[in-house]
Amino acid sequence: MVRISLDVMGGDFGPDVVIPGAARALERHPDIRFVLFGDEALCQPLLDKYPKLKAASTFHASEIAIAMDEKPSQALRRGRGKSSMWQAIDAINTGEADVVVSAGNTGALMAMSVFCLRTMTGIQRPAIAGIWPTLKGESIVLDVGATIGADAQQLMDFALMGGAMARALFEIERPTLGLLNVGVEEVKGQEEVKEAGRLLRETGIDSIDYFGFVEGDDIGRGTVDVVVTEGFAGNIALKTAEGTARQIAEYLKAAMSRTLMAKIGYIFAKGAFDRLREKMDPRKVNGGVFLGLNGIVIKSHGGTDAEGFAAAIDVGYDMVRNGLKAKIENDLQRYHAMLPANAAANGAVGEV
Amino acid sequence: MVRISLDVMGGDFGPDVVIPGAARALERHPDIRFVLFGDEALCQPLLDKYPKLKAASTFHASEIAIAMDEKPSQALRRGRGKSSMWQAIDAINTGEADVVVSAGNTGALMAMSVFCLRTMTGIQRPAIAGIWPTLKGESIVLDVGATIGADAQQLMDFALMGGAMARALFEIERPTLGLLNVGVEEVKGQEEVKEAGRLLRETGIDSIDYFGFVEGDDIGRGTVDVVVTEGFAGNIALKTAEGTARQIAEYLKAAMSRTLMAKIGYIFAKGAFDRLREKMDPRKVNGGVFLGLNGIVIKSHGGTDAEGFAAAIDVGYDMVRNGLKAKIENDLQRYHAMLPANAAANGAVGEV
Repeated sequence: MVRISLDVMGGDFGPDVVIPGAARALERHPDIRFVLFGDEALCQPLLDKYPKLKAASTFHASEIAIAMDEKPSQALRRGRGKSSMWQAIDAINTGEADVVVSAGNTGALMAMSVFCLRTMTGIQRPAIAGIWPTLKGESIVLDVGATIGADAQQLMDFALMGGAMARALFEIERPTLGLLNVGVEEVKGQEEVKEAGRLLRETGIDSIDYFGFVEGDDIGRGTVDVVVTEGFAGNIALKTAEGTARQIAEYLKAAMSRTLMAKIGYIFAKGAFDRLREKMDPRKVNGGVFLGLNGIVIKSHGGTDAEGFAAAIDVGYDMVRNGLKAKIENDLQRYHAMLPANAAANGAVGEV
Repeated sequence: MVRISLDVMGGDFGPDVVIPGAARALERHPDIRFVLFGDEALCQPLLDKYPKLKAASTFHASEIAIAMDEKPSQALRRGRGKSSMWQAIDAINTGEADVVVSAGNTGALMAMSVFCLRTMTGIQRPAIAGIWPTLKGESIVLDVGATIGADAQQLMDFALMGGAMARALFEIERPTLGLLNVGVEEVKGQEEVKEAGRLLRETGIDSIDYFGFVEGDDIGRGTVDVVVTEGFAGNIALKTAEGTARQIAEYLKAAMSRTLMAKIGYIFAKGAFDRLREKMDPRKVNGGVFLGLNGIVIKSHGGTDAEGFAAAIDVGYDMVRNGLKAKIENDLQRYHAMLPANAAANGAVGEV
C-alpha cells in the first residue's frame, strides 16, 4: 500500500482535475490509498462520481485554498495549518501519508514544504528535480528552481540526491551523472561547479558514475542519467527547452497547413504525427520532485489535465515503492562518513 | 564600402569553408572589401578559383593557425602577433578593417579580442550576443558565454549594447528588452538581476523599451527584441535550445520513416518539411557578435559550411552598415551622463 496525500485545491482547475486524475492513477495502481484535503462543498459532489476513488480515500475538509498567484510569504502566513496545501504536506508529519502531490503554485508549495517538513539532516537547501525526455529515454535534471546560486557542497548534495532518485525511478544501479557547465574553458566564475567536480571525482561515491561536465545540448541528447546544476540556470534551461518545443510545434503546424500537398501529406502521416505529439507530450513527464526534505513532495504543473495529474501521482507512487527517501538517506550517510572532517568529528564525539 | 577582415584558418575546415563563404557574401554585397589572413600555400590555390573574391581582397600571409581545441591562454602566448586570428583582429586597430569574422575557437577568439582591442570606455566586461529565431522573427540574446556571473552594472551595460545592436540589426527605433529571470518570486539570490531591473526602470533610457523580467520560454516566443542575462545561464539556454531542436528533428525523422503511410505522407508534404528545415536551419542565424570591445568581432560556428560562414559575414556587414559601434558609444555616453555620480564627477573634474 502506498499512501498519497493530495492538495485537491491546487492547480488552475483544482478538484476538477485532481479528483479525476486521482481516479485514473488508482486504476493503474489499485494499492494506492489517498488522503484528500480540500473544500468539502466542492469536492464531495465530484468524489461521488468516482465511487472507487471515494472508497480508497479519506477526505479532510480544509478552510483555505492557496491561490496560484499568491506570494510564498503570504501563502505561509494565511495558509499555515488551515490550507489544503499545508495540511496535505503535514500528512507526512502526522504519518498519514508517504508522499504528497500538489499542482499548487511552486513558490508557496516549496516554502510550505520547507517550513513543514524541514530539510534532511546534512542537507542545507532543497532542490527540485525534473524528469526530462531525451533521445535515449529520460534523465533527471536538478535543481530546476529551488536553490538559486548553489555552492559546491550543495551541488554535491544535489548529485547524491539525484543519483538516489535515478536509482529509484529508472531502477539502474549506478546512474551516470554530469555537472552542467559552459563549454568555454578557463572562464572566470562558476568556481563552485569546478569545485563540485573535484569533490565528485575525489570522493568516488560508488552509487554514482561521475561523467564530468556536460553542456546544455547534452541534456536532450541523454548523455547522462542525472544532470546537476544550480536553480537559476536549471530553471532557465527547463523553460527554454519547453519554449523551443512549443516553437517548433508551431512551425510544424504552420508548415503542414500551408499547401494542399502538405495537407494531403499530413493526412497520410497522421499516425506518425500522433506518435510525435505523444512523444512531446508534456503531460507524460509531469511531476517535479522536491528533494532534500523530510518527506517527498511532488509538484504537478498547475495547468495540467487529469492525465497529467495522474502522471504526477505515478511519479510519487514510484518514488515510495522504490524507497527513494531511504536511498537518499543512505547515500548521504555514506558520503558524510567518507569526509575526512566528519570522520575526525565522528572519532572524537561520535556524532556528525 | 565595408572592409571585413577574415581569419581564414579559423573553424573546423579553415580556408575550404571561409573562402567559398566569402565569395558568396561578396555576391550579395559587392561593396565588401576583404582583408584575408591565412597560410599562403593553402589559401592561394583556393583564391584562384574565385577571381571576383580575389580582386576584392588583400591577402596577408600568417605563420600560425590557432587550433580549435587550443586553450585561450596558450593561443594568446603562441599566436600573439603571428596567428591569422590575431592579425585579423588587429586589422581593426591598424585601420585596415571595420569588422572581423572568425570561425575559430570561441575562447581563444574572445581572449585575443579583449587583449588586442580592449574593452570600450565605460565597459568592464564584454558580452557575446546571439541572434535567436523566434515565433515573431528574431531576437538578440546576450550574454551567451563571455561573462559568467555578471553583476547589475554589467547587465545594465549588456542592455545598452543589446539595445543598440537591435536598432542596428532590426532597424527598429526603440527595441523592447527583458531581463532573463526565474518565475518563482521571492527567491533568494540573483540580487543582481533585480538590481539591474531597478536600474533599467529608474534611468528610463529612451533607446530601450524596458519590458521587465522574462522567463526561458519567452525567448522562443519572441516576447521581447532583446533578452539580457549573464553568460552562464545564457550559454546554457542557447545550448539547451539547440539540443531540443535537434532532439525534435530526430523524433520527427524517426516518426516519418516508421510506417509506409508516414513515408507516403512525407513525400506529399516534402515541400512543407523543406520549409520547416529551412526555418530551423542554424546556418541562417550563424554569427555571435562580441560586444563591448573597441571593434566588432563576429564569431561564426566552427563547424559551419560556406553558406553559414557567409551568413556570419552578412551579420558583420549589417553591423558596420548600420553603425553599430557608434550607436553603442552614443547610448553608453548618454547613459553615463545620466548617472548622478558621473554627473557630479563631470562637474568637478570634467571627466568620467
